[in-house]
Amino acid sequence: MSSLPAAVNPPLRTLMGPGPSDVHPRVWAATAAPTVGHLDPYFLRVMDEMQTMLRQVFRTENPLTFAVSGTGSAGMEACVVNLVEPGDRMLVCQNGVFGGRMADVAGRAGAEVTVLERPFGEVFTADEIKAALDGKPVKAVGIVHAETSTGAMQPLEEISKVVHEAGALLLVDCVTSLAGAPVEIDAWDVDAAYSGTQKCLSCPPGLAPVTFSPRAEEVIANRKSKVASWYLDTTMIRNYWGSERAYHHTAPINANYGLHEALRLVLEEGLEARWARHRANHVALREGLAALGIEYAVAEAHRLPMLNAVRIPAGVDDATVRKRLLTEFGIEIGAGLGPMKGVTWRIGLMGAASTRRNVLLFLAALEACLSEQGVGVTPGTGVAAANAAYA
Amino acid sequence: MSSLPAAVNPPLRTLMGPGPSDVHPRVWAATAAPTVGHLDPYFLRVMDEMQTMLRQVFRTENPLTFAVSGTGSAGMEACVVNLVEPGDRMLVCQNGVFGGRMADVAGRAGAEVTVLERPFGEVFTADEIKAALDGKPVKAVGIVHAETSTGAMQPLEEISKVVHEAGALLLVDCVTSLAGAPVEIDAWDVDAAYSGTQKCLSCPPGLAPVTFSPRAEEVIANRKSKVASWYLDTTMIRNYWGSERAYHHTAPINANYGLHEALRLVLEEGLEARWARHRANHVALREGLAALGIEYAVAEAHRLPMLNAVRIPAGVDDATVRKRLLTEFGIEIGAGLGPMKGVTWRIGLMGAASTRRNVLLFLAALEACLSEQGVGVTPGTGVAAANAAYA
Repeated sequence: MSSLPAAVNPPLRTLMGPGPSDVHPRVWAATAAPTVGHLDPYFLRVMDEMQTMLRQVFRTENPLTFAVSGTGSAGMEACVVNLVEPGDRMLVCQNGVFGGRMADVAGRAGAEVTVLERPFGEVFTADEIKAALDGKPVKAVGIVHAETSTGAMQPLEEISKVVHEAGALLLVDCVTSLAGAPVEIDAWDVDAAYSGTQKCLSCPPGLAPVTFSPRAEEVIANRKSKVASWYLDTTMIRNYWGSERAYHHTAPINANYGLHEALRLVLEEGLEARWARHRANHVALREGLAALGIEYAVAEAHRLPMLNAVRIPAGVDDATVRKRLLTEFGIEIGAGLGPMKGVTWRIGLMGAASTRRNVLLFLAALEACLSEQGVGVTPGTGVAAANAAYA
Repeated sequence: MSSLPAAVNPPLRTLMGPGPSDVHPRVWAATAAPTVGHLDPYFLRVMDEMQTMLRQVFRTENPLTFAVSGTGSAGMEACVVNLVEPGDRMLVCQNGVFGGRMADVAGRAGAEVTVLERPFGEVFTADEIKAALDGKPVKAVGIVHAETSTGAMQPLEEISKVVHEAGALLLVDCVTSLAGAPVEIDAWDVDAAYSGTQKCLSCPPGLAPVTFSPRAEEVIANRKSKVASWYLDTTMIRNYWGSERAYHHTAPINANYGLHEALRLVLEEGLEARWARHRANHVALREGLAALGIEYAVAEAHRLPMLNAVRIPAGVDDATVRKRLLTEFGIEIGAGLGPMKGVTWRIGLMGAASTRRNVLLFLAALEACLSEQGVGVTPGTGVAAANAAYA
């Protein structure tokens, strides 16, 4: 067939956007290991091992902890549609694109959704959530721990208390934070949480780690209606990941191999060491950007270490710089999302991509791009400031 | 960490069950190619090429043809929830597990579902579907082309006519048939169809090729309510796969690389040649099984070439034989599903696994297992009969 496209032959990128992040070659190798059946005794063992490792990474003992066979957005939908039923009230905290998405998902599942809004880049206080819950009973409160669209980190401990005092379940988006900053499912008393594989887990996109507390499991067990989605119905999926091993759908075998290896890499390093690495590289990048005169879009107290949302300097063409970074230097960074489009860049330092090498490479490349755009930059200052931060 | 599980190191299997099937090493290699971003110009080109190849494999010119970021069951859910709205009437033809699953999915989406039943292993006539449609208007008729649970092939051409005469949309499950037997989306006037990657496409599980006719697209565009699933909403996904390239969710990059290579393999071989290969190996297996005294569970006229559902001989222990095939010979075959559990074996000859080598290996191994179970078999007769069928 002369019209066949050429075989896949991707360019080598340094993935410093909002995800996917750089993947460790050990993960790619695992992904390419021989496929076995989804009920093969070997794969069942892999599943057990993954559950154990996912619990360690989520810092939980929740039995219902597994990988949804879809991306992070499928993980969001899985958490929402299992917890809420038509007519249930749900409070969704929206300070970015992903809070908005959660409200949309909950509405489709038949929930009566109340949206509590904060401007993009800000975070919520426990008091304002407590005030918002001061009315009719709410089934669940949904909130984003690390808003990938804005770069803001939401403190959760106090909020968890007011949510539970109001008798609601706490549903948390950990897509971008998991394995890059503290996520303490049990200590924070989170009832349902989801993540994605392509952020700080540094695995290709395609699976969504989720965990449900025993309290959430009880709520699901007492539902009056079927879960809106058959594919994401934990009352059936649990019988495949659990000891029954009842066929539900055919698990993505090779993607799970990849996640297994990615989890091994996380635990080899150790969670605390990994959080510290993300923090250290964030600080160095911050110092380097400051030296280049670039400002963050989020207040310092609430910045994500793994996703740096910064204001595009005045007079600089957004698309031109991102394209030059990609084509000349092989570096992908993210554009602003939603109302932040053209306003911010999102610079990821996630998982395997959170390295001193990448911080320095990016600052050096950005300096070249800014000079071309006529922004006055003293040569080498960004790199020097970052290097100093490691000292 | 001393408690870390060992790295993934799967046993080598010959996958002759209901899927996943054997994966060509070129597909594994593509899956392990460097990850790029989901909006990288390179990945957008890969998506365009995949759409072109998927249309060739589906035999359609439908613009809305793409890979759902989930397994075949997510493809089913995507087709159903996009076509039907709460209160819509849907007729689902159920003659196996997957028809039953479709009825469940449609009910969750709020459809008023009527189930037309036939015993497992039988197929429907156009007349009985016409009779079932002789009442209130029906929005969609769902039917399974190749029932993976029973091994039966459903003729569709006449049914398509009666469905459209009744003003309904035709929704077809092609999970097991696509690329292994004729699937003619345009010639048969199918409005929505879904498949999986892990059957005759011989790719690891994880993606679901789908296609929607312009008629279906129009129905979707005129919906009164949002699609029940955010994740599977084609009104948004089409803007990512289409020229707008609007971010919806992060596509499973590496899984798509794998499907890209799997589609190249299908088109290199040619669809007609691939169908003929599946047919020839099915015939040889059939002759070999007949020589061993093993009968099919489906009438000859309606047997799937890629999935042979056969009756477990009297006095033979189902689980013992399947376990022996797996552990001693590395061959996976499938157990019966639903009411066929313990009654049938499902022997797959799908995609890369549909080879003369596998037919002969399986018959030789089965002969050994049957002898151990005390079934009188004249040594070598199965293999000899299969070899003769190729002559």
